Amino acid sequence: MKTTGAEIRMGNEMALNRHVSVNSSRLLSRIKELGQAGRDADGKLSRLAISEADKVGRDILVTWIREAGLEVAIDRIGNIFGIWRTEDQLQEPVLIGSHIDTVKNAGIYDGCYGVLSGLEVIQTLRESGFSPGRPIAVAAFTNEEGVRYAPDMMGSLVYAGEMTVEDALSTVGIDGTVLGDELSRIQYAGTETPGFMKPYAYVELHVEQGPVLERAGAAIGAVEKLQGVSWMRVTIEGTANHAGTTPMTMRQDAGHAAARMMTFLHGQAVSSQTGTVVTVGSLTLEPNVINVIPSRACFTIDLRDPDEQSLQSKEVDVADFLSRLTMEGFSVNIESLARSQPVVFDRTVVQLIEAAADGRGLLHIPMTSGAGHDAQMIARMCPAGMIFVPSVGGISHNPNEYTLEHDLVNGANVLLDVVNRLSAN
Amino acid sequence: MKTTGAEIRMGNEMALNRHVSVNSSRLLSRIKELGQAGRDADGKLSRLAISEADKVGRDILVTWIREAGLEVAIDRIGNIFGIWRTEDQLQEPVLIGSHIDTVKNAGIYDGCYGVLSGLEVIQTLRESGFSPGRPIAVAAFTNEEGVRYAPDMMGSLVYAGEMTVEDALSTVGIDGTVLGDELSRIQYAGTETPGFMKPYAYVELHVEQGPVLERAGAAIGAVEKLQGVSWMRVTIEGTANHAGTTPMTMRQDAGHAAARMMTFLHGQAVSSQTGTVVTVGSLTLEPNVINVIPSRACFTIDLRDPDEQSLQSKEVDVADFLSRLTMEGFSVNIESLARSQPVVFDRTVVQLIEAAADGRGLLHIPMTSGAGHDAQMIARMCPAGMIFVPSVGGISHNPNEYTLEHDLVNGANVLLDVVNRLSAN
Repeated sequence: MKTTGAEIRMGNEMALNRHVSVNSSRLLSRIKELGQAGRDADGKLSRLAISEADKVGRDILVTWIREAGLEVAIDRIGNIFGIWRTEDQLQEPVLIGSHIDTVKNAGIYDGCYGVLSGLEVIQTLRESGFSPGRPIAVAAFTNEEGVRYAPDMMGSLVYAGEMTVEDALSTVGIDGTVLGDELSRIQYAGTETPGFMKPYAYVELHVEQGPVLERAGAAIGAVEKLQGVSWMRVTIEGTANHAGTTPMTMRQDAGHAAARMMTFLHGQAVSSQTGTVVTVGSLTLEPNVINVIPSRACFTIDLRDPDEQSLQSKEVDVADFLSRLTMEGFSVNIESLARSQPVVFDRTVVQLIEAAADGRGLLHIPMTSGAGHDAQMIARMCPAGMIFVPSVGGISHNPNEYTLEHDLVNGANVLLDVVNRLSAN
Repeated sequence: MKTTGAEIRMGNEMALNRHVSVNSSRLLSRIKELGQAGRDADGKLSRLAISEADKVGRDILVTWIREAGLEVAIDRIGNIFGIWRTEDQLQEPVLIGSHIDTVKNAGIYDGCYGVLSGLEVIQTLRESGFSPGRPIAVAAFTNEEGVRYAPDMMGSLVYAGEMTVEDALSTVGIDGTVLGDELSRIQYAGTETPGFMKPYAYVELHVEQGPVLERAGAAIGAVEKLQGVSWMRVTIEGTANHAGTTPMTMRQDAGHAAARMMTFLHGQAVSSQTGTVVTVGSLTLEPNVINVIPSRACFTIDLRDPDEQSLQSKEVDVADFLSRLTMEGFSVNIESLARSQPVVFDRTVVQLIEAAADGRGLLHIPMTSGAGHDAQMIARMCPAGMIFVPSVGGISHNPNEYTLEHDLVNGANVLLDVVNRLSAN
């Protein structure tokens, strides 16, 4: 999917104040402090969306937004905005965003880094005496992770008008709670209509959550594309038989059929020209006994591709393989669990990110995001882009998630320069 | 492994009374009646070794043995014998045996068919006025299935002197019970020393539990060999990573490594010249989540081969494949869970089975047993052999286990003729 056709200007390069940088100690200490909200007795961080822990995190963020002198706005799905208003109320704002909800047993950077860097960038620009040509706002979108309530990226999805507020509020969570009730309970059911503030442009800063930048030795990823994702659940049914008494030629081994499919899909992805990735992350056999040929294999396929045509062709490969299994006598079933199209981010935003990295003397590479982000939703309303910084070991969604401090600061300064130019007079 | 080198005579073909056949209605009704012992409220049959249900089955069997005029003997591991004594107490008996314990949710034929046919054969021979040259006995060996207490084929293993009674009695079951306590509780802790009655020859009649006879259209399998079994547990450890953000070339996907191994092993078995079969029946992935590359795959390998050299070479293939994975950076572990050598049954017994089938006009084929049976243990003490009859659909260890009545009767009559000749003057 292409992003919206709206056009933005590169901004005046002369407006960029090259002497301004973010207050790194303020940014780093805030990341650490927010990372303490929602730790359990064992010290594990779990700030699931719209939980008590999430409320604690939200309250901290709102306090910091107010301290920075920004206006706080909260919409009906609980998205939090910190807005630096300018005199011209008609101008569309530059929006910086991400999320502060986490997975279970999470690290402290995923999402929070982007929100707190957005706040830091605005605060730095205010303190520097910069006079923006349009409002600048920071957003923390509700329920990006989707752990407690599906789908993920819900707050930005609703904000972009692709899901109704009513549908979102009536979502029942894995714990049986209704999202809208919980949002009221934690006092973050706001009054603004989602989408109330159409952005001029959107920029999201995020840890990569993968190994590419680290292995390339690059400081900045200028994210050009975001992979389309196809999640499937495949069930193959063969025949359970005795592992000793059934000759190889008389078997219908559902586990072996699944293994053949796994190696086939892996080969298709490795030989792809478009950067396809495929993962069989979950697999169960039945009856799952050492001396019984599996009658049933049920597994998931996580297929991602930055190219929609290639993604579709891989989906056809899956279907073709399954129909060959049917001809061999297996019963097969395939279910689509989720499907999103690839996103191509705005070329101007990407160029501004590259120029900012160059301006700071930082090695940057073009990247494709393998993970979903709020940016892919907001890209439906305005030109959008993303900045990645390295994740040590590529680790994320894990307490060992880590990004070196100088990489965090570099990323925030690139965001600063991009926002500076996008919002200049 | 070769069986004992003891030699038996083919017996006098003239001694065979071709006008005698088993009482088929008595045999079939007993199979059905014993199949009712141990059904739960849902009608499922589970007569696990040395359980209350097993006691009910044993009591029924002992009653029938007594009704047939045979002497009942029970040894210290609970093996039950029905003995037709002859005047010459020094003669070694022809022993017919199998088991009456079952798996969970079992069929009614596995084991019981062999024991009840053995009883039927003796009863028929007695009723026919036959005067045997040596004793004939039927045995029901304790705990053949090994579901509740490991190892399987325990009663015959102890009887053959390959496991001590003390070790067997102290076995702790999956339910935490001690075998010896349970055996006393159900009143089947006998006084005979296992092995007290060394057989002249041993014959076991069993349903095939596989599809070979049915597909060949044969009525009788003359079992020449029994596969050696190697059970292994393999653990492959790679690295958990994000399914979207980790390029294919930067992965250590333990699930994919397991799938490669599964397809490799399958190919090795299919191309084997010795009838190797291999099954990966149980497999679990960790963390087993749709969008996380598996960090760990743990699976079992059930490898069977009637040829010891071939079995060993397949075990080497497994080790070689794992060491290749190690060179790719995976951590691997392999554990042997069980290992038995192939058994070659006594040529004379096999020939007697073939002659008996020919005499009854029944199509017979030589076979390899893919399952373990008490015969493989008793083959260590005396010449032994097995007779198979077809299993409809090859199904076993399942309520749908089924053998046509005429096949059951044919098998019992072949057993009758074999025992007749082995025990003739």
